[in-house]
Amino acid sequence: MTSQSAATPALPADQATVRRSNLALVLGRLREAGPRSRADLATETKLNKATVSSLVAELTTRGLVRETGIRSDGAVGRPARILAVDGATVGTLGLEANADYVAAHGTDLAGRVLVNRRDSVDLMGASADQALGRLTSLAADSLDAMAAAGARVAGIGVAIPGLVDAADGTVLFAPNLGWRNVPVAARLASALRLDPAIGVLVDNDANLSALAEYRLGSEAGTADLVYLTGEVGVGGGVLVDGRLLRGSAGFGGEVGHMAVDPASGVLCGCGRIGCWETKVGLAALVRQAMPDSPYRIGAPVRDPEDRVAEILERARAGDPRTLNTLEEIGRWLGIGASILVNIVNPKAIVLGGYFVPLWLYLVDAAERELARHAIAPVGGAAGYLNGAAGEAARQVRMVPSALGFTAAVRGGAAVAIDAVFADPTRVDGDRSRVDTSAHHQESEVAV
Amino acid sequence: MTSQSAATPALPADQATVRRSNLALVLGRLREAGPRSRADLATETKLNKATVSSLVAELTTRGLVRETGIRSDGAVGRPARILAVDGATVGTLGLEANADYVAAHGTDLAGRVLVNRRDSVDLMGASADQALGRLTSLAADSLDAMAAAGARVAGIGVAIPGLVDAADGTVLFAPNLGWRNVPVAARLASALRLDPAIGVLVDNDANLSALAEYRLGSEAGTADLVYLTGEVGVGGGVLVDGRLLRGSAGFGGEVGHMAVDPASGVLCGCGRIGCWETKVGLAALVRQAMPDSPYRIGAPVRDPEDRVAEILERARAGDPRTLNTLEEIGRWLGIGASILVNIVNPKAIVLGGYFVPLWLYLVDAAERELARHAIAPVGGAAGYLNGAAGEAARQVRMVPSALGFTAAVRGGAAVAIDAVFADPTRVDGDRSRVDTSAHHQESEVAV
Repeated sequence: MTSQSAATPALPADQATVRRSNLALVLGRLREAGPRSRADLATETKLNKATVSSLVAELTTRGLVRETGIRSDGAVGRPARILAVDGATVGTLGLEANADYVAAHGTDLAGRVLVNRRDSVDLMGASADQALGRLTSLAADSLDAMAAAGARVAGIGVAIPGLVDAADGTVLFAPNLGWRNVPVAARLASALRLDPAIGVLVDNDANLSALAEYRLGSEAGTADLVYLTGEVGVGGGVLVDGRLLRGSAGFGGEVGHMAVDPASGVLCGCGRIGCWETKVGLAALVRQAMPDSPYRIGAPVRDPEDRVAEILERARAGDPRTLNTLEEIGRWLGIGASILVNIVNPKAIVLGGYFVPLWLYLVDAAERELARHAIAPVGGAAGYLNGAAGEAARQVRMVPSALGFTAAVRGGAAVAIDAVFADPTRVDGDRSRVDTSAHHQESEVAV
Repeated sequence: MTSQSAATPALPADQATVRRSNLALVLGRLREAGPRSRADLATETKLNKATVSSLVAELTTRGLVRETGIRSDGAVGRPARILAVDGATVGTLGLEANADYVAAHGTDLAGRVLVNRRDSVDLMGASADQALGRLTSLAADSLDAMAAAGARVAGIGVAIPGLVDAADGTVLFAPNLGWRNVPVAARLASALRLDPAIGVLVDNDANLSALAEYRLGSEAGTADLVYLTGEVGVGGGVLVDGRLLRGSAGFGGEVGHMAVDPASGVLCGCGRIGCWETKVGLAALVRQAMPDSPYRIGAPVRDPEDRVAEILERARAGDPRTLNTLEEIGRWLGIGASILVNIVNPKAIVLGGYFVPLWLYLVDAAERELARHAIAPVGGAAGYLNGAAGEAARQVRMVPSALGFTAAVRGGAAVAIDAVFADPTRVDGDRSRVDTSAHHQESEVAV
């Protein structure tokens, strides 16, 4: 996914690979261990000092490393120049297309948020071309905004609610978008006229959200977790020991389509019967709680947060239909979560999307059913009642996401940042090559 | 888990670790790449020739390597002596305690079967002490038989249908045995007076069966598979990319307790309601198909194969109750399998225990429900009808185990062999120290 960049003379393939690996080693050390001198880096990476100096020079040219000061700690010899990751001039962009919105989230390498935007749009009623046009337009605006903030974009990560071939960036099937075999990475790269060095990674929205929670959320550092998207679709991102469980053919984590009630006869958006999504998806919630306001394809577009706000209002007012619906959804949330726990045994189940604002009305039934059916002991409210303190390390907990609707786009930006740290040559060494005008021109054609 | 053995002089901890690692490197190379010379090994492992010679000498003393001949291929210099793994004098033993039997399977490193035995016994009605006594007695007989066949036992792997802390060999909870917190590894080592170098590994029976299928069964080499134990309990061993999915606290793979029908009100052996085991476990089969012959604790012990043979006979005779029961069990087998597939997406689901002899009567309903509810395309009979040829690589299939009831004990022997290859110092260098008489003496006390 990388091209020959301006900063590096052509090298034989093997040497180029070694060079990339060494650039990543030095940059990664600075990321993990913090600012330090060239001599420190040489000692710690076991590379010789001349090599480290050459690597640092290249990383500096690429805008990834800068000198932050001089350390004179009384040691013999001249004071050492201290190096640090230069987060300010390189950034990545997360994008998301979902049933009823497109979103973008851009950060620089230091984590400063440069773009954070979500536009309501009915993609369930749009063609894949129209949807990609909207996404391209949002991406172009975002790239402009990031360029204006002084950050060159070195990678893009795109979240899609569906089955994705992550290896080539193609969406195989996204039922709630109506997409089949859409080469999203190639289409975006072309429409945005991206430099080939700027990789476009595409992954399932729940997978990217799970990674975002592991990196940034309240469960940062929890390497065994399941993220559930509470939207029109209910997807799952399953992290086992910090790695995504994709399965033998990429169909792992399709938790919304667990057959939790095949006898119900209720048809899912995927065409199957009795899927978990028919019990706990946003459409099920709206259908049951707001029969006067059907949530269907072709209905006037409404932001899901507006609908959720209305349901929340009704719940606070004590509306019996709303409260019964939320109790029933909480119950099925706990039953489905218990199945996940009995197979995967994560440390935490992180609930995203609409589950977050309504969690107060879901938690009791959800934790009760989880504790009733899970083999692992359950933490949270149920755990406080039942569990001994020493059991805490074995407990599984359900927690609402602190990242809310932004988890997937943040995850997209995060995987793109990881790609830069894994291969610093993704960042072009010639800063003059950023051309923001091209993005908009092409995106307008694409829409 | 290793002790200072007679063949190695005391070394500082770091040096001993390096030595063990180098022994494993040389032995592993011979295992994977086949017979070769010391010079070949030096080239391939990047160790110097003197070190390789010393390592080979130690491995030979430990009975793990032998010279098989001389290669004189016309090259300059004297002919090279060819080395190979010496499989004949070192073996491992797999053991299993299950609800209604104990079993043993002993092999040497070359895979020659030295012991293969299963004794019917009602462990559901026995105390943990009684059960361990039976297992110890069987182990002692097996160790004697292996010694008589000229193989010293270098490790034991024990399969238990329950939650196991594999790190210290303790069974935390085995509902169908009635065990809680039983330190099986320590109890067996003590009762059998094992040399501390002989590691006793304990793991869940489904986990060990999954490993056996991956190593030895018809799915050998399939790194993403789920093994289901079709016994009184229904356990799952989940392999993801060749590694067992244990979960954050060891509760992974408890698939028999997925809440597939919580509204049913049917109580499981674990105390929960609506578990998959209440739909597809052997007790459910017997209860529904043979109401005249209840399967309960305290009933006269009957070998499960006898019961299964009787059901098979009734099915062949066209008995409607039996056929309806098998159809219903096949249906629930497919529904539960579809849930596993939608979360984990294995390449194969391998069915063990009673599912194997009755597969012909289960397969149609099972594959139909799996294809109806799984996102991944389904192979097997359903796949032949629906799937395009090019889809084969993405398909998931259900297959009956070719290892049958022996999968778990074979897995136990296999993990013990892996432990020897990972640390060859587990095999004592002083062959005179094998004392078979001690085993029996102590085992008789323990019973």
